[in-house]
Amino acid sequence: VTDSATYFEIQQFYARQMQSLDGGSAKEFAGTFTTDSSFVHHPHNRVDGRDAIAEATERGVERTRLAGLVRRHWFGLPLIEESADGTLLVRYSAVTTVTAADGTVTHEPTCMVEDILVRQDGRLLNHVRTVRRDDLKDR
Amino acid sequence: VTDSATYFEIQQFYARQMQSLDGGSAKEFAGTFTTDSSFVHHPHNRVDGRDAIAEATERGVERTRLAGLVRRHWFGLPLIEESADGTLLVRYSAVTTVTAADGTVTHEPTCMVEDILVRQDGRLLNHVRTVRRDDLKDR
Amino acid sequence: VTDSATYFEIQQFYARQMQSLDGGSAKEFAGTFTTDSSFVHHPHNRVDGRDAIAEATERGVERTRLAGLVRRHWFGLPLIEESADGTLLVRYSAVTTVTAADGTVTHEPTCMVEDILVRQDGRLLNHVRTVRRDDLKDR
Repeated sequence: VTDSATYFEIQQFYARQMQSLDGGSAKEFAGTFTTDSSFVHHPHNRVDGRDAIAEATERGVERTRLAGLVRRHWFGLPLIEESADGTLLVRYSAVTTVTAADGTVTHEPTCMVEDILVRQDGRLLNHVRTVRRDDLKDR
Repeated sequence: VTDSATYFEIQQFYARQMQSLDGGSAKEFAGTFTTDSSFVHHPHNRVDGRDAIAEATERGVERTRLAGLVRRHWFGLPLIEESADGTLLVRYSAVTTVTAADGTVTHEPTCMVEDILVRQDGRLLNHVRTVRRDDLKDR
Repeated sequence: VTDSATYFEIQQFYARQMQSLDGGSAKEFAGTFTTDSSFVHHPHNRVDGRDAIAEATERGVERTRLAGLVRRHWFGLPLIEESADGTLLVRYSAVTTVTAADGTVTHEPTCMVEDILVRQDGRLLNHVRTVRRDDLKDR
């Protein structure tokens, strides 16, 4: 990416996006995606469109809540590349913790994530997110 | 927050603050709080004033040292809002690791933290820190 | 450090460096070190020179691959100081996760890392990296 202002903007975008998800606001989370976005869990699952992402997220959030758990997402350092058309390609590792009511913390498998971010009406939105779990990697 | 310079300043502030704590320097850690600050562990515990924070921190640091453990704090991406009066509200997830002499690593319950940062004589200080543990959350 | 542009540059440097390592590209990882660099695992081990770092890294990468594991490095907030000669001293905590094919995640002992970064032909390179494992700390 070209400058530190964009870096800051991206990190704020992710902070807001993932605090929405971890806080259980499926609709707010989905609102950080474009209406024609795709959320891909490579290689098994693909959800197309903001509305479908909102629904899938709501089901996940509800499942976590009913289980009495709190999930939190942690992102590694993002590697950022800007295309000629202004699209941002961001690549980072991620891991999710699950905290139970008795205080135990478990970790879901680590992942690599690739996002395509676009700018619409001046603000960043997620156009495509591709998640590759390290436990499903070809070995 | 308004710009990337402030973002950088906040991240340096936290790096210094938490490396002081994890390195066992209770006084240096407490020095990152205002003299009239509050450190709240919601909903159980509240410590008021820099001196009291220094004492409570010293007890914690000593307990960790005597147990032969090393604690380290890890912060998630901060979401930053600036008030009209220049006060910064920063919200982030946090998790603490505990490493024993035999190399085993355990995780304390994840948390959400809200800080109110103020500027005094040109430098940032923590006015209020509120920590909410995920295992104590209403379910 | 002087400004947010340098902060951004350092974080991009680390993102690229560690994604190379975690992705198994020993040569690309070693390429982020100066030809006359040193990689020190305090107090046991010291590797001098980019070529030797490449070889040692290749062995580690191969070991991880043969074991069917994926290792990922996670860095805490960096504390950055700039010397009069432009050299950057960066200090941060780090932890490595190991994800197995069955999805289990284990953590290697947490560390403190100190890097000396230098600028050559306009880009940052690692001149010295010193890693101190918390389980080997004097207690």
